[in-house]
Amino acid sequence: MTTQADGAKRWLAQVYVSLKPAVNDPQGLAVRDGLHMLGYDEVDGVRVGKYLTLTLSAPDQATAEARVAAMCEQLLANPVMERYEFQVSEADGEAQPRGEG
Amino acid sequence: MTTQADGAKRWLAQVYVSLKPAVNDPQGLAVRDGLHMLGYDEVDGVRVGKYLTLTLSAPDQATAEARVAAMCEQLLANPVMERYEFQVSEADGEAQPRGEG
Repeated sequence: MTTQADGAKRWLAQVYVSLKPAVNDPQGLAVRDGLHMLGYDEVDGVRVGKYLTLTLSAPDQATAEARVAAMCEQLLANPVMERYEFQVSEADGEAQPRGEG
Repeated sequence: MTTQADGAKRWLAQVYVSLKPAVNDPQGLAVRDGLHMLGYDEVDGVRVGKYLTLTLSAPDQATAEARVAAMCEQLLANPVMERYEFQVSEADGEAQPRGEG
């Protein structure tokens, strides 16, 4: 756990933003058609969303989570068409987003 | 678990595609600057990637995983700049991507 001079800790937030089920997903349809053209006919549905990793400092996990939720509401997700989900974990030294190392 | 007439089962694949660490992420920088403008100065790094959910049929999980890996290599991720990670789980009836219900 990295603790900075001001006592704040570093956190890694993994945010998943996806379209609400009722919203059309032309990008998903395009990917599905592309997969079909490549011979992956077994795929019947594709939905495309955003995966963001943020590194931030906060005194504790609850504060970090509250701030990330506010960031999602204000900027990272469009509340009309999208929904979001996130996980906050301690960033050990070098942040380790998904798939790292 | 939904089993189709031909004995194939339905699977849900959650795919996370992110830029390799050495690759610049202008989109991530733009999001970070946006967050700073909104007063979230505690954010020091943002990386933006793709989060895809696929529903597919396959006789078993290993086959589904092998096929999803091949789809990532061929279409879903750009092997030069991106890396990917995925999870395959049984799709119960209505597929339940992350954040559903």
